[in-house]
Amino acid sequence: MTKKLVIHLISDSTGETLRSVGAAAAAQFENLAYEENVYPLIRSKKNLERVYDKILENPGIVLCTIVDDEISKMLEEFCSRNKISYMPFMNNIVSLIETETKTKATKKPGGQHQLNDEYFKRIEALNFTLEHDDGQNTDTISGAEIILVGVSRTSKTPTCIYLANQGIKAANIPLVPEQELPNFLTTSNDMLIVALITTPQNLVEVRKKRAIELGLDPKKDDYTNINTVTKEIDDAKRIFNKMGWPTIDTTRRSVEETAAAIMNIRAQK
Amino acid sequence: MTKKLVIHLISDSTGETLRSVGAAAAAQFENLAYEENVYPLIRSKKNLERVYDKILENPGIVLCTIVDDEISKMLEEFCSRNKISYMPFMNNIVSLIETETKTKATKKPGGQHQLNDEYFKRIEALNFTLEHDDGQNTDTISGAEIILVGVSRTSKTPTCIYLANQGIKAANIPLVPEQELPNFLTTSNDMLIVALITTPQNLVEVRKKRAIELGLDPKKDDYTNINTVTKEIDDAKRIFNKMGWPTIDTTRRSVEETAAAIMNIRAQK
Repeated sequence: MTKKLVIHLISDSTGETLRSVGAAAAAQFENLAYEENVYPLIRSKKNLERVYDKILENPGIVLCTIVDDEISKMLEEFCSRNKISYMPFMNNIVSLIETETKTKATKKPGGQHQLNDEYFKRIEALNFTLEHDDGQNTDTISGAEIILVGVSRTSKTPTCIYLANQGIKAANIPLVPEQELPNFLTTSNDMLIVALITTPQNLVEVRKKRAIELGLDPKKDDYTNINTVTKEIDDAKRIFNKMGWPTIDTTRRSVEETAAAIMNIRAQK
Repeated sequence: MTKKLVIHLISDSTGETLRSVGAAAAAQFENLAYEENVYPLIRSKKNLERVYDKILENPGIVLCTIVDDEISKMLEEFCSRNKISYMPFMNNIVSLIETETKTKATKKPGGQHQLNDEYFKRIEALNFTLEHDDGQNTDTISGAEIILVGVSRTSKTPTCIYLANQGIKAANIPLVPEQELPNFLTTSNDMLIVALITTPQNLVEVRKKRAIELGLDPKKDDYTNINTVTKEIDDAKRIFNKMGWPTIDTTRRSVEETAAAIMNIRAQK
């Protein structure tokens, strides 16, 4: 029987950090079914009391990021009374920063979601990326910090959106068989252009799935034929080589990992 | 003089969790300039050694998520030799889960980026959301789990993308002055429809900024005129009331906070 790991994530903010920590922790265990329960915006005793029943119904570990001392204390006592493991994992880090910088923490919830310059930079990057998805609006593409190039379905779009969430203006240009590269790609020297590639087998699989999603017949088309797809990829590789673009194989990589590889290329430029 | 908090985030995976934790910690301090340095995909001694110089050039706190014992030990020793604060904050959480579930951690890096069902669900949600942005493809909108409705520039698109990153198929429909609501919004009973609203002052400001970004004259248009915008919002509120849609004021809320509020509405349905 597979064991089950139930984690209750209780946050006075959006719960984003907790979700990320919970998933990273759970990923260290094989054969453990993972169930996360997220309770965001818990900022009062009343909010907190509503969570108690849900924890008791389905006991598990409590991870929390609650900066208010009183509410955090209440939750700690509730867990201790009910013999539930409780971990306010940010406390150590905040204490370390206090010691290191000789500054006191403010204990205001949700501070990382301030509508500050960095936030607006991210939203602006997202707007830019959506407007420059899939070869759109090339007249304003010179504003891009990173341009991804690749044949259809090599995860250009989700990778760009992930980069945009980090405040980076990313655009992407599809490589279409028998079509010339747009001019700005061959003349520009100062933009970081990265090529994405995958194996023909993988691409055929992804494209077939995609065709079915769109209600098309996946067998009918050069788009999913292994021979034409192999040629399409070979041609793309030749172009990438000729242009000297760094190339990332996305075959067994998640979007997050592809983005991390792109950021490494960028840091080394 | 503003003090500066330098954090080095060293990850054997994408660094996403670390970035989130670092930002949440830094947000607890006012009057501290924050500088984060992310080193993703550190999976060998050679990778790690390249990071040393960068830390020594610009000393600060080291937060890390490295599961390999040998590499993690090396980094710990480096920090101790150089009197740099070091915190592998996932260790406590992983130990807690080991104790709780009587299961051993696998210590494989990057486990949370497996190309599993959940991953593909997220990518599928992102595709769906992009295809159903801003009122597109309404013939397939019945696949949406959440539909956001609002006048132009109330953060419908970035909120939908944020929800999609959590695996939720979210679509959004613009409310256009003098135009009827699309049929499926008035007849559907089983979709969660949430309305976004903001103040006229805020909307005018956001739209003016947007017009400038697009190279337009922000003064020329009903789109940014306070009187017409006020009427537009009043009309929208009347519709939301009449339809009984839960409404979120996004005025001083980040996209993450709006999404958290939507998830709370969804949990209570």
